[in-house]
Amino acid sequence: MDVELSQEQQAFAQLAREFAQGELAPHAARWDQECIFPVDAFRRAGELGFCGLYAPAEMGGLGLSRLDASIVFEELAAVDPSTTAFLTIHNMAVWMVGTWGSPKLLEQWGEALAGGNKLASYCLTEPGAGSDAASLKTSAQKQGDFYLLNGAKAFISGAGETELLVVMARTGAAGAGGISAFAVPADLPGISYGRKELKMGWNSQSTRAITFDNVEVPAHCLLAKEGEGFKLAMKGLVGGRINIATCSVGAAQGAMNVAREYMRGRKQFNKDLTQFQALQFKYADMATQVVAARQMVRLAACKLDADSSDATVYSAMAKRFATDAGFSVCLDAQQLLGGYGYLKDYPLERLVRDTRVHQILEGTNEIMRVIIAQQLLERGLILE
Amino acid sequence: MDVELSQEQQAFAQLAREFAQGELAPHAARWDQECIFPVDAFRRAGELGFCGLYAPAEMGGLGLSRLDASIVFEELAAVDPSTTAFLTIHNMAVWMVGTWGSPKLLEQWGEALAGGNKLASYCLTEPGAGSDAASLKTSAQKQGDFYLLNGAKAFISGAGETELLVVMARTGAAGAGGISAFAVPADLPGISYGRKELKMGWNSQSTRAITFDNVEVPAHCLLAKEGEGFKLAMKGLVGGRINIATCSVGAAQGAMNVAREYMRGRKQFNKDLTQFQALQFKYADMATQVVAARQMVRLAACKLDADSSDATVYSAMAKRFATDAGFSVCLDAQQLLGGYGYLKDYPLERLVRDTRVHQILEGTNEIMRVIIAQQLLERGLILE
Amino acid sequence: MDVELSQEQQAFAQLAREFAQGELAPHAARWDQECIFPVDAFRRAGELGFCGLYAPAEMGGLGLSRLDASIVFEELAAVDPSTTAFLTIHNMAVWMVGTWGSPKLLEQWGEALAGGNKLASYCLTEPGAGSDAASLKTSAQKQGDFYLLNGAKAFISGAGETELLVVMARTGAAGAGGISAFAVPADLPGISYGRKELKMGWNSQSTRAITFDNVEVPAHCLLAKEGEGFKLAMKGLVGGRINIATCSVGAAQGAMNVAREYMRGRKQFNKDLTQFQALQFKYADMATQVVAARQMVRLAACKLDADSSDATVYSAMAKRFATDAGFSVCLDAQQLLGGYGYLKDYPLERLVRDTRVHQILEGTNEIMRVIIAQQLLERGLILE
Amino acid sequence: MDVELSQEQQAFAQLAREFAQGELAPHAARWDQECIFPVDAFRRAGELGFCGLYAPAEMGGLGLSRLDASIVFEELAAVDPSTTAFLTIHNMAVWMVGTWGSPKLLEQWGEALAGGNKLASYCLTEPGAGSDAASLKTSAQKQGDFYLLNGAKAFISGAGETELLVVMARTGAAGAGGISAFAVPADLPGISYGRKELKMGWNSQSTRAITFDNVEVPAHCLLAKEGEGFKLAMKGLVGGRINIATCSVGAAQGAMNVAREYMRGRKQFNKDLTQFQALQFKYADMATQVVAARQMVRLAACKLDADSSDATVYSAMAKRFATDAGFSVCLDAQQLLGGYGYLKDYPLERLVRDTRVHQILEGTNEIMRVIIAQQLLERGLILE
Repeated sequence: MDVELSQEQQAFAQLAREFAQGELAPHAARWDQECIFPVDAFRRAGELGFCGLYAPAEMGGLGLSRLDASIVFEELAAVDPSTTAFLTIHNMAVWMVGTWGSPKLLEQWGEALAGGNKLASYCLTEPGAGSDAASLKTSAQKQGDFYLLNGAKAFISGAGETELLVVMARTGAAGAGGISAFAVPADLPGISYGRKELKMGWNSQSTRAITFDNVEVPAHCLLAKEGEGFKLAMKGLVGGRINIATCSVGAAQGAMNVAREYMRGRKQFNKDLTQFQALQFKYADMATQVVAARQMVRLAACKLDADSSDATVYSAMAKRFATDAGFSVCLDAQQLLGGYGYLKDYPLERLVRDTRVHQILEGTNEIMRVIIAQQLLERGLILE
Repeated sequence: MDVELSQEQQAFAQLAREFAQGELAPHAARWDQECIFPVDAFRRAGELGFCGLYAPAEMGGLGLSRLDASIVFEELAAVDPSTTAFLTIHNMAVWMVGTWGSPKLLEQWGEALAGGNKLASYCLTEPGAGSDAASLKTSAQKQGDFYLLNGAKAFISGAGETELLVVMARTGAAGAGGISAFAVPADLPGISYGRKELKMGWNSQSTRAITFDNVEVPAHCLLAKEGEGFKLAMKGLVGGRINIATCSVGAAQGAMNVAREYMRGRKQFNKDLTQFQALQFKYADMATQVVAARQMVRLAACKLDADSSDATVYSAMAKRFATDAGFSVCLDAQQLLGGYGYLKDYPLERLVRDTRVHQILEGTNEIMRVIIAQQLLERGLILE
Repeated sequence: MDVELSQEQQAFAQLAREFAQGELAPHAARWDQECIFPVDAFRRAGELGFCGLYAPAEMGGLGLSRLDASIVFEELAAVDPSTTAFLTIHNMAVWMVGTWGSPKLLEQWGEALAGGNKLASYCLTEPGAGSDAASLKTSAQKQGDFYLLNGAKAFISGAGETELLVVMARTGAAGAGGISAFAVPADLPGISYGRKELKMGWNSQSTRAITFDNVEVPAHCLLAKEGEGFKLAMKGLVGGRINIATCSVGAAQGAMNVAREYMRGRKQFNKDLTQFQALQFKYADMATQVVAARQMVRLAACKLDADSSDATVYSAMAKRFATDAGFSVCLDAQQLLGGYGYLKDYPLERLVRDTRVHQILEGTNEIMRVIIAQQLLERGLILE
Repeated sequence: MDVELSQEQQAFAQLAREFAQGELAPHAARWDQECIFPVDAFRRAGELGFCGLYAPAEMGGLGLSRLDASIVFEELAAVDPSTTAFLTIHNMAVWMVGTWGSPKLLEQWGEALAGGNKLASYCLTEPGAGSDAASLKTSAQKQGDFYLLNGAKAFISGAGETELLVVMARTGAAGAGGISAFAVPADLPGISYGRKELKMGWNSQSTRAITFDNVEVPAHCLLAKEGEGFKLAMKGLVGGRINIATCSVGAAQGAMNVAREYMRGRKQFNKDLTQFQALQFKYADMATQVVAARQMVRLAACKLDADSSDATVYSAMAKRFATDAGFSVCLDAQQLLGGYGYLKDYPLERLVRDTRVHQILEGTNEIMRVIIAQQLLERGLILE
């Protein structure tokens, strides 16, 4: 066991920190307030390899580990969790395409995706199939050289702005085994996008519903084989949950940094806020939560990197724990700023709004508990 | 001891519920999104007496008890806590004017305020004097028939839209004993207003800083006597805290109502959400929190109505407990809606944003703990 | 609505406080350590009417309200929750006997029970029927003038020391409707008692299993009618839960009193413990919890006194909330004493151990949530 | 970064598990109930090297890392945290002796301590100097070849049963810099022991006060140099806190194991307890807490093994987090057993009582927060 980051990892962290300061920090508040999907920032992230961090080298990805990716994402999320979270979703989709895409698909899309010149959305959720993803109804009927795609997706991050859609659709019978995954060009005829959803946060990510009306998806867009789509989607999510958890850790650390700076400069009753014991204790507990959350995330990332059979449960634990801790720490940091924490002049209220959704998506934290309990109580898994 | 509401109180609740449904519910989301201060709604509230619920009858108020007022506010806040919270602030200011204003002041302002034709702001906080309110620096120097007002206030609800400002300013030495309270016409020369603050919520209330530059305030605008201003301000806040706590209780109840309706109509894994035991338990705990918070609020209101010496500590407890519980319940309700809870199509995310600030203002919940501890540990108060 | 206690209630509280100081405080630690069931103390409590507080006057009870009883129990529990809790169980059983007993039964037992000369146990739980009480298997077969009782009960407070057993047994079909209640003399042939259970706390109450082997119970010992036993048992428990919740409130207040005294006398880093802000905040939150718990208990008691249809849900809420809050406050108080809180020289660790079981018995707090959710989600009850 | 245990570490874990099952499990309940200090068990632990796990090889210790030791302690604590906790205290004291003891001292004591034939106590706390350890008053006056020791210690684990006392005493001025550490033979004339303290738990450890009355301690018993005692004591505690945190993790895992077994065999409402969603969620959260706590402990152990300057703050975080989580998980596990969890027939209530004190000793969790806040807010430490 070894808890230290390698020099290379520290260098990545440093690079990410600089990118965050230079390319995200100056704009994050505006992107939030004006609901701007910052395509240029994604392009520049792509130049550093951040759009294909753990995508295979063959497609132009960096081929890094999930742990490496997490270290990068954490630094970015400290400044802008919403934009970073979309970047992680793109990375997840790119990894799916890179891992299970056909040669032809990769030839067409590989480099552009890994380099951030094209962006991808992950399309699993449907209006009636949220937590119960395996009940999805979007259908893909094989017709010669293509699949005829029909149905609707909801809550799709980046939809309307991205060039590729990783779509889970039913090619067979009911249940998980009848689902296949496709990489669908976002501008195919028959694809239409709903209005931009108005949300509490994650405003630098457009979220839209998508309707598929007899969309002809070329057969080479199928990922892996028919019937494997749900398994692929879940494999993607195991990593995706670690990513989202990472974004919460980063945001929480960012919130703590802002709060510390504020506390040092703010006097009340003739003392710096740092001198009030109750606030010190609060800050100590926040820091402890963040450290624990970070360890959970890295533990899960290492398990996934090692392809451990426990990776699913550790990922679920990391997601549940870190997104709850991260949100709670952002709230606490906001409270430390008093009234100023409620103003958009400071980033705290944005961090609160952005991290709130991490408890809900990529499997709600309730679903995480279902997964954990299943592994421990049904399968009798023992974690040590 | 008697825990039931009187028939009259139930009638007020019913009236308030109807007003909330008719005048607030259809607009609350828009007022939030477009940051509209709904002057017309306040006028109509005034027609029902809601702008001077516990203001003296002599000035046109209803002269009701704090408990009565709380019952009304709770119903309104179930639909729109932000708008209701401003209404409570206005009520607090009106009560101060009505209780300590000079006959001339009341003649000029009394009826208009109590009837909602003129609105009032409460101006205590300053940029450098948040929790430590007694250190305020705004000065009011007596010069013949008027006071010369200089200084700045921050975080003033309604500022720029209201007609009267209840301003705490220093007329004497440092500390609480040197502070006086004034009812200042909002359009006097020398008063200037900052930009509308951009906030996480409470968007139907404009919030602005105010600068006083040699403002000549007529002497009859002094409330009570010189040097009593801090005491008055705190007396106002004892009730104000009960009001804010009430708004959290109302919002939480409103959130629970929305969540219940959603749970009944939403199926996952072929069952209504109401059938999932973990969600049932969550809902049961939410309901228990709301009932406890409501009791705390009503207990404090009764203590204040009875002019009990414990009213301050019960009010602080109610504010701390109910605003924490209220926010937590709104979060839980939001979670029950899953992704839909994050969208502005549903009121949950607004209730979350609006109730967040209740933990911060009218004395942060940290200051509530300072007050409670002082009473119990220093003065040895025993509550039974 | 009125939150004040009447003068009579205050007098009862004072009487109870004196009894607690004189008769419980000097012995509670020893009764705990030596597992003594303090029969004499119960006798003396009976002299004050505390053994039949809300039992009908006709049987020698005081005929007080549940609220009155709660005020008495709270004061006793501040000193010794274990002994007080048994007293509440006795009161519950006595009330059942007094309310539904036959004239002959009351003639034999009424005065002795209400006066504390005979003590009663409540026998519902069975080894295999804990939370699912309606599945109980103990059977009572009518045979002429008596019922033949067979089966086993578990976790019976006072068993082996009490003179009367209120036993729920099956006289009919499966389910709640086949259950009847009996007042069974504890020394009937065929009744045998298990060993005294070794427990974490509640040591002044003996707890034993009971076996019924062809026990001939005279027919006049039936309470109410056949088939009504489960309903009776549940009616008893609605009040019983308020009682247990009361014991937690009392214990928590007692723990806070001890902690305050300690904090005032203990110096660390040259300051009284009361001077440390983090401890002040902790204490403030403890006090707020206790006040809220007390209000929940009194609210439920008033609802039961008014025979409100909501009494069941309010009782379940009070039990869940107050027993959780009470335990948590006892833990916090223990922590405030540092190492001394872990020693038996101080009452804190005993209060922690004793209040722990309140979260488990008379319906676990999980079952309370089931009850609350059922009322709110299934029946659509609205609490306001 | 690497999260896996080495094969050697897994072998140690296995060895410890077997020892726990064979030597601790059959007796732990009795040791608790009869307050037996199990000297023989410590001897046998010593045979496996468990009495000097991280003590220098030169004195007969295994010279393992703190991480290795933690892995061993966790397995033992899963069965008996009280006995294990004493073992960790002994290990801490032995390490101090081994690291800073004079050659003569090591010659006399080294092997016996590392092999478990002699046991050691750590004597820092005094009646008036709990959290404020640096204010201790026990004095050691140099007089030729020995130090004259006078004063009193409190809450000393093992006192009266151990052969060696590691005593912090004042040889110089007030404050931390005037304190020295000594290894004092426990039977020197002038040492007297108080009565065995009656405690909530940790009953397999005797706890006594110690009085030193002109005790002549040979000069070679001084550890390191005069004035370094406080620094040594704190260095010991950095590791000691990791050990105690480990014991909480182990106990929590042990509690979860018992609860799972119970849940699988217990039917209510015709379903195994494992089938109730609310209980599943509870169990999932418990498991997540335990995994997070374990990671915090191992992180801190690795930091200490690497002699990192952050080791102090990570150790404080691990101690705060893991002892709170551990206790909370034991409570939850106890709740899952319902009434059975309150009986001494099951280990749950013992695990609850034993882990309670971990939140209090070796620096209360409040002191942990002081340490963490100091590092983060005063020194500006950044953890990443």
